[in-house]
Formats: sequence, structure tokens, C-alpha cells
Amino acid sequence: MDRTERVTLTNMCMITDQDRILVIDRKDPNWPGLTFPGGHVEAHESFNDSVVREVKEETNLTIKNPKLVGIKHFYDEQDHRYLVLFYRATEFTGKVEASREGKLKWMSKKQLFNEQLAVNFDRDLPVYFDEQVSEHFCDNDLDLLY
Amino acid sequence: MDRTERVTLTNMCMITDQDRILVIDRKDPNWPGLTFPGGHVEAHESFNDSVVREVKEETNLTIKNPKLVGIKHFYDEQDHRYLVLFYRATEFTGKVEASREGKLKWMSKKQLFNEQLAVNFDRDLPVYFDEQVSEHFCDNDLDLLY
Repeated sequence: MDRTERVTLTNMCMITDQDRILVIDRKDPNWPGLTFPGGHVEAHESFNDSVVREVKEETNLTIKNPKLVGIKHFYDEQDHRYLVLFYRATEFTGKVEASREGKLKWMSKKQLFNEQLAVNFDRDLPVYFDEQVSEHFCDNDLDLLY
Repeated sequence: MDRTERVTLTNMCMITDQDRILVIDRKDPNWPGLTFPGGHVEAHESFNDSVVREVKEETNLTIKNPKLVGIKHFYDEQDHRYLVLFYRATEFTGKVEASREGKLKWMSKKQLFNEQLAVNFDRDLPVYFDEQVSEHFCDNDLDLLY
């Protein structure tokens, strides 16, 4: 029996260097503003390879040993699930260079929590910063953290 | 632009009670043998609710605060991605009762590693037991841990 559903698979990675966090000011008209780097998972791509590739494309950094910290998911306008795998990376090589996706900026955790962020991105942050939280689920009027 | 792919979303949960681990001897003809309880995510269901529901159905236990520890994924015979969210639960209430899915047995970690397990399930175990591993990806001849 086919139990599949149509899903968009993506990732987003918080890169830290000591107490600095790398933030992208994304130009994407669908989700502009401050967020973390990331993008789509390609067909037949591992999730690890996908987040390494996306971070390289958007920041020029080559991350090593990214760690899965949780998942966000919601339903898009076509009623398809949109899934974002959240990673944290503390190891990387290379020099930060912005892409056409948006400018990059290092900031402290305090700065991050005080900035105007991309829509609903503030609700993603507990998944990155609270070890007890590993899911952010939005559906209709629901906006839940687990 | 539609970037969706057809995905089967499921979960699997390692329930521990002190140094005992709950194992199911699954009757499923597609994947018989020893594994952990779990099942399919329903449409519009959160992943947390899904794993709580599936564990209840297969073990009669009500788990609390299940923690996402990683993900397994592979491609099925229709070339659709099959995704399994791996959870660990140390808190629960209720008394173990088996369902039609299969008999249940508590065993030690040592026992688990010495049993004949469901196909390829031994390769899933590092995701549960090694904090550095959060992905098991199988595709064609690839069988990778990240």
C-alpha cells in the first residue's frame, strides 16, 4: 500500500564559531530576512551531504560533522508537508563569502534574539538552543514545540 | 516551483527502562524480526504525536518526552524515499502489552547486539547509541552513517 505523501525536504544550519553565530539576510521573496543558511535536499542525496553542499553554496564554508538537532515542518499552500532538518555545525574550514542568496553576518546569541528575524524564525530557535526541544510543527492555527 | 518528492514518513522508538531496552519481534512480512516499536506518520500529524501513538498501539505504553536522535532513509521499490525518524524514550507510564504487530521483550544492550535482528537493523543501532551519528542512509549499494 502506498503510504507516501508529497514532501519538500530542506535543511537549515546554525554555524557557530566560539560565541559567534552566522546569520544570513535572505533575499528569498517567499521568506526574506534573517535566518540560518540552508536549502533543498536533492533526490538521492544524503541529508548530511545536502547540508554541507548548501552551506558551501551560501557561505563558502566547508562544514564538518554537522549534527542534527531537530526538525521543523508545516503545510504549504498546496497542502504538502514542508520539512526542514535543523543542523548545528561547530567545525568548518574556509573564509566566509556571501552568495546571491543574501549577505552574511556573525552575531552573538543575544544579538540574534534581539533582531527582527524572518517570519516565525524566532519560534525555530528553541530547537537549536533547548536540548529538550526537537520539533517545531505549524499546521493551520497550531504552532507547537515538542 | 514544486520541489516536493514522494516520501513515506515513519518513526521508530527505543524505549529504555534503566538498562533494559524494549524490543518487538515484528510479524510484518516486509520487515520481520527484532526491531523497535514504531510506524507511519499520519497526514497533518506532528512527529511527536505520531511516535507517542504508535508506541501506545504496539506496546500499550504511554511515552513522555520522546527525544529525536536521528534519521534513517532509503529508496523503496518505487524509487520513493522512505524516512524513519528515530526516537529514544526513557519516561513512560502503563504496563507492556503486545499487539498483533508482534511480541515484546525487554533485553540488555549486550543481548540486543548479540541477537539476530531484522534486516539491516544492526546498521541503525549506531544512530541510537553513538551521539556522533545522526543519519543512516541506504541508496543502491550505499549504506552510510553520518
